[in-house]
Amino acid sequence: MSGAGLATAALAAIQSLDAPALDVFFDLLVDEFSPDPARVEQAAAAYGTHPSSTNLRRLREAVEPPRQELFRRLNLAPAGLARLIEMRRRLLCTLADHVQRASIDDDLVQLFRSWFNGGFLLLQRIEWSTSALVLERLIQYEAVHEIHGWRDLRRRLEADRRCYALFHPSLPDEPLIFIEVALTRGMSAKVQPLLHPDSVVVDPRTVDCATFYSISNCQEGLRGVSFGNGLINQAVADLRRAFPQLRMFATLSPIPGFTRWLATATASLGCDVISAELAALLARLAAGDAPDPTTMSGDLQSELSRLCAYYLLHAKRGNVPLDPVARFHLANGAFLERLNWLGDTSVAGIHRSLGMCVNYLYRFGDVERNHQAYARENKISASCEFERLATLQVG
Amino acid sequence: MSGAGLATAALAAIQSLDAPALDVFFDLLVDEFSPDPARVEQAAAAYGTHPSSTNLRRLREAVEPPRQELFRRLNLAPAGLARLIEMRRRLLCTLADHVQRASIDDDLVQLFRSWFNGGFLLLQRIEWSTSALVLERLIQYEAVHEIHGWRDLRRRLEADRRCYALFHPSLPDEPLIFIEVALTRGMSAKVQPLLHPDSVVVDPRTVDCATFYSISNCQEGLRGVSFGNGLINQAVADLRRAFPQLRMFATLSPIPGFTRWLATATASLGCDVISAELAALLARLAAGDAPDPTTMSGDLQSELSRLCAYYLLHAKRGNVPLDPVARFHLANGAFLERLNWLGDTSVAGIHRSLGMCVNYLYRFGDVERNHQAYARENKISASCEFERLATLQVG
Amino acid sequence: MSGAGLATAALAAIQSLDAPALDVFFDLLVDEFSPDPARVEQAAAAYGTHPSSTNLRRLREAVEPPRQELFRRLNLAPAGLARLIEMRRRLLCTLADHVQRASIDDDLVQLFRSWFNGGFLLLQRIEWSTSALVLERLIQYEAVHEIHGWRDLRRRLEADRRCYALFHPSLPDEPLIFIEVALTRGMSAKVQPLLHPDSVVVDPRTVDCATFYSISNCQEGLRGVSFGNGLINQAVADLRRAFPQLRMFATLSPIPGFTRWLATATASLGCDVISAELAALLARLAAGDAPDPTTMSGDLQSELSRLCAYYLLHAKRGNVPLDPVARFHLANGAFLERLNWLGDTSVAGIHRSLGMCVNYLYRFGDVERNHQAYARENKISASCEFERLATLQVG
Amino acid sequence: MSGAGLATAALAAIQSLDAPALDVFFDLLVDEFSPDPARVEQAAAAYGTHPSSTNLRRLREAVEPPRQELFRRLNLAPAGLARLIEMRRRLLCTLADHVQRASIDDDLVQLFRSWFNGGFLLLQRIEWSTSALVLERLIQYEAVHEIHGWRDLRRRLEADRRCYALFHPSLPDEPLIFIEVALTRGMSAKVQPLLHPDSVVVDPRTVDCATFYSISNCQEGLRGVSFGNGLINQAVADLRRAFPQLRMFATLSPIPGFTRWLATATASLGCDVISAELAALLARLAAGDAPDPTTMSGDLQSELSRLCAYYLLHAKRGNVPLDPVARFHLANGAFLERLNWLGDTSVAGIHRSLGMCVNYLYRFGDVERNHQAYARENKISASCEFERLATLQVG
Repeated sequence: MSGAGLATAALAAIQSLDAPALDVFFDLLVDEFSPDPARVEQAAAAYGTHPSSTNLRRLREAVEPPRQELFRRLNLAPAGLARLIEMRRRLLCTLADHVQRASIDDDLVQLFRSWFNGGFLLLQRIEWSTSALVLERLIQYEAVHEIHGWRDLRRRLEADRRCYALFHPSLPDEPLIFIEVALTRGMSAKVQPLLHPDSVVVDPRTVDCATFYSISNCQEGLRGVSFGNGLINQAVADLRRAFPQLRMFATLSPIPGFTRWLATATASLGCDVISAELAALLARLAAGDAPDPTTMSGDLQSELSRLCAYYLLHAKRGNVPLDPVARFHLANGAFLERLNWLGDTSVAGIHRSLGMCVNYLYRFGDVERNHQAYARENKISASCEFERLATLQVG
Repeated sequence: MSGAGLATAALAAIQSLDAPALDVFFDLLVDEFSPDPARVEQAAAAYGTHPSSTNLRRLREAVEPPRQELFRRLNLAPAGLARLIEMRRRLLCTLADHVQRASIDDDLVQLFRSWFNGGFLLLQRIEWSTSALVLERLIQYEAVHEIHGWRDLRRRLEADRRCYALFHPSLPDEPLIFIEVALTRGMSAKVQPLLHPDSVVVDPRTVDCATFYSISNCQEGLRGVSFGNGLINQAVADLRRAFPQLRMFATLSPIPGFTRWLATATASLGCDVISAELAALLARLAAGDAPDPTTMSGDLQSELSRLCAYYLLHAKRGNVPLDPVARFHLANGAFLERLNWLGDTSVAGIHRSLGMCVNYLYRFGDVERNHQAYARENKISASCEFERLATLQVG
Repeated sequence: MSGAGLATAALAAIQSLDAPALDVFFDLLVDEFSPDPARVEQAAAAYGTHPSSTNLRRLREAVEPPRQELFRRLNLAPAGLARLIEMRRRLLCTLADHVQRASIDDDLVQLFRSWFNGGFLLLQRIEWSTSALVLERLIQYEAVHEIHGWRDLRRRLEADRRCYALFHPSLPDEPLIFIEVALTRGMSAKVQPLLHPDSVVVDPRTVDCATFYSISNCQEGLRGVSFGNGLINQAVADLRRAFPQLRMFATLSPIPGFTRWLATATASLGCDVISAELAALLARLAAGDAPDPTTMSGDLQSELSRLCAYYLLHAKRGNVPLDPVARFHLANGAFLERLNWLGDTSVAGIHRSLGMCVNYLYRFGDVERNHQAYARENKISASCEFERLATLQVG
Repeated sequence: MSGAGLATAALAAIQSLDAPALDVFFDLLVDEFSPDPARVEQAAAAYGTHPSSTNLRRLREAVEPPRQELFRRLNLAPAGLARLIEMRRRLLCTLADHVQRASIDDDLVQLFRSWFNGGFLLLQRIEWSTSALVLERLIQYEAVHEIHGWRDLRRRLEADRRCYALFHPSLPDEPLIFIEVALTRGMSAKVQPLLHPDSVVVDPRTVDCATFYSISNCQEGLRGVSFGNGLINQAVADLRRAFPQLRMFATLSPIPGFTRWLATATASLGCDVISAELAALLARLAAGDAPDPTTMSGDLQSELSRLCAYYLLHAKRGNVPLDPVARFHLANGAFLERLNWLGDTSVAGIHRSLGMCVNYLYRFGDVERNHQAYARENKISASCEFERLATLQVG
């Protein structure tokens, strides 16, 4: 009669462990709750000889770390799921110094991927009438364009804005991920006018474009469980139902890795490629200075734009784009439509990408083809203009 | 943009397969979506040599059948979960003739155990104000004491009755399991008076015992995923909140395997042990006759009672009780309290156990000890009277 | 601190009064809680002399029976509203013998009309997933075409049927009125095929007509508070949203007063008008016999049809139709479209109108004009065919 | 088919009227929609002669202004109720200059009293998880202790605070009235420590007193419809359920009329009664100066305390207390427990009552007796200490 009771007690105990005690606990999970190599080899050999269903079952039992069952039982406690997510958050902080614990992490990720299967998640529109508890978490979790208090938030929930979040039924007050959308006439090129709390509210019957300007994961302890694709699909479906007149679904996205890449990559691109002005800018960046893009010369603007387009289209990590936001949208089937100079002039925007941002476009006729081309050949789709811009005269 | 869309199409296709086409599909899942034995052996050897987290991850990837990922994706479709459960129901029908498919079944059971983790299930009290859609399913799924229409059901939901069911958040209209409780003065010995639609409704403020008289699993496709323990625990917790004056939590349970056992076991018990009257009864049973326990002699009643108590306490399958209901309640920490002659005189009750039924008692001070004793040593707890009754003078 | 407490105690006391004690209570309400005639006359005179707002206020205070305030306070009790409705139901039973109590009734009706203002009522679609408690009340309250148990009810809630009810927020389990709709291809002429539990369910995407075949008031204690018009309007609005392809909104209505009228009215129509066959039929009716319309001669069918059309179009009570259902739909702006021989062959249908029923048609372009014509001049709209049928060759 | 449609159009038209057009509309309601004095006198005479139920009905029909029916119909529109409340708000602004319109106001108040009968209102606990839309309205409507933004509000919704509001089912986002409660150890004497956003949250299991420190009506257009008594009763009932250990239910209330009274009343109390220091203070007040009570002499503090206690206990408007908050709580059955020097040192508190506030105590054994004594004889209950304090040595 005590599964839930034991789980509650155990989780409360784990929750209260300080860092050294938690280390002991994690080491125990590695040392005592891992599969037995001898038993694994034996089961693998039997399956190799005779791949029957019985042998497969034995093999899988031998391979599953016993800590998996422990985690499953801990979930029986009230708030068990939230506490397991918190436990993984604490585990993640220790991984760099304890590589063996990656196995514990693998177990938790596997569990969470199963439990947070997209079929179980609930799309919820976030409105001003939503619980303040949830709204407060949006303020806290927004990772792209900071929300400066309730007035700022309220503008993002007006009639010409939409906000959607995914929830797990067992965590009704905890958004897993959320996306913010501006309904606009034409595709937006700049984010500050969208965010301004006093900006004029557009009559949503007159819009033709949905601009996705921010998407944020909320739970550090669910890192590696992917929610973005499902959220975008469902948000688009809901927007099409509500506004059949929409003709464009685009993002207005940050370029988080550009400045970092710029600092290191220009050397390898060859010295012919960069101007003296850019060299000076790089020196300032290296010194920790924040340049002001509104005062840059036309030549520098042009040079930086070309480099940024090149970065998005050609800079790679292995076979895929170096930029994480690019990886996400391109894998989803979007394509690179337009680079926007002065698109995000916030401190964060300048720090990330010298004030530039980019529109990815979701064109329904092409999404599946783009997605397949990317998945099979890592092929990136882009507009002609974008491709032209990305052509560097490398020396 | 098409995970859910593809899943929907695929599930619809599978749903529409006729039996031969489904056979082809299942064979494909075995032949093409099983782990590669060579890769498994290699990964197992690497882990044996060096049990690092990387090698463990590779081993687990090698061991997981690719069809697992397929099933996870199918769940993205609307109603995906219901259709996967239905697919397994159809798979189960074919297992006897296709033993290799047990691996598919293992995959589905593993998924379902993860997805239907007790921490995600919702206890719901079933009342007359519950949706008729759900009530109709209770009528359909009741497996112990048939519900003869809406009037019969309504009596089971009156003020001195309780009914609880567990639901998964994605299947809000589909009970997974339900339990029926009579609030009584003293522990009930007979089930027919409880079920009679015209029986007097007792004032629930005057009761002292909760009698669990029926528990039914609802989803054939979830066979092997256990819900009973969680349901009983939560039902008991809710009852204690609502009726602090309750002093006893007992079952009034069927003995499904007694008649079957009786037919085969008496021989092995030795000829001294059975009377001529019982021998005649056994002959009638063998001929498919249904005897009437109300007309049996006192001697026969006494003989059958002793045999039935013996069956519950001593008849085994391996180390555990042969009777499945006994296995369930004894593993949960209940003990054998009392055998009831003429406890269930329905056709089914006579067919199952010649009209006898049994009270298992959940005594809170003892549940944990009973559960541990059963789990570690297969020890069965019973009242002194019950143990005395179970003593056969075997020749 | 005791408004609600006093109200609860008072209502419980009233609820428990037997008939004689209730008589005493009602007499008290008349004798002690009526306006004081002298004070009324004085206030009226003052208002006549000087119709100021102060004098109007005093006049209204003088005129309001003190029992009104009593009733308002009783409503503070939990379930107060239900008990006041029940109190009026009991009052209505005594009105015939106690005409002075009509004043109490006027007070209650005035309160209920205010409290049940259409703006506060909630339209709810009734489905198979609705609470069994509510569904059971539909079975109990259906006044036109009896519902024979749950199987019968279920057919009325299938995909090609709709059922709507109005609720008051304080009485969430008590429908006030409900309407049943069949979605059909073409306007239905006969009710039995619609009601048959085994009738084929039509794909609702293929229908073009919504046939309202039953509408029932539920609360005897709310007699005189009218809900029908609001319910039809909202039901039509919901149907149009759900099925934009619907081209016709018609009723298939009973003719409750025809047989009664026929028995008394033929004499006054002149002896030339009725055939010997009809005279024989009338004699049988007078003797309490139930004739079978399926066996009647073509001549008699024709004669009865003409008389029934005449009844609906020309028989009056004052300036309005004698038939109550006609009064309701014609006042709402419907018009008389078609008389249906053998439209309702149930015992009740034969008893009401010798098996005939009638389609009223709601044509949106005409509803407002019909309503105005009826409201101003008691003008009844009917199809040409119906008007032709209603022409009697009176001798 | 057009009741709701007409009402919608009419209300939209009224809503859009500018002030002069609205004047025309209100004049029309007075001139054309008032009872006919001649018809009233005739009906009153008939009732005087023969007070039958028929004559009473005719009299009441004659007396009811036809605009009542108009208002009832306007309520059929979506948002009709909110718009009628808004219409009355605008009407109230014009009453001072148009006394005849008091009749319209009487009609609306009568309707609203009927529609907002306490039996229909819903108590809702307001929490941090409540809709931000509702929370924002609390910030806007708080009338006693201003809420300075979301952080301030949040403190008022922590574990040791409670907030309750009443709602009408047709206005789910519009609180009608709300009350704020601090759960404290002992009765609070000062309001600023309760309101401070950084004040320590007390463990609610350790409290013994519920201090009601603020109660605000929200809808100007519902002025004269009383909600406070019902709200307090229900809040107390909910608190007792949740915290059975509570031993005191007290208010910490403002004294809104003291400063105003002080300025005018001291003269009439006789010149012996006031000190030179107080005379100087009065002169400063008359000059619009805000004195600082924390710097006042002990003598002045004592003198002001005695005057304030006198004001609460003896200053009258007719037979009832002059102070509106005193009228409210004393009529509800509370009694005057304690005067608190420096109880509310906010600008508003000093302006209202020179920083003093007062505890009214609801003692359950006495509430009904106090209420009756007040209702029948306008008798005010107070603690001995309070009565002593209120004794002035008037010259």
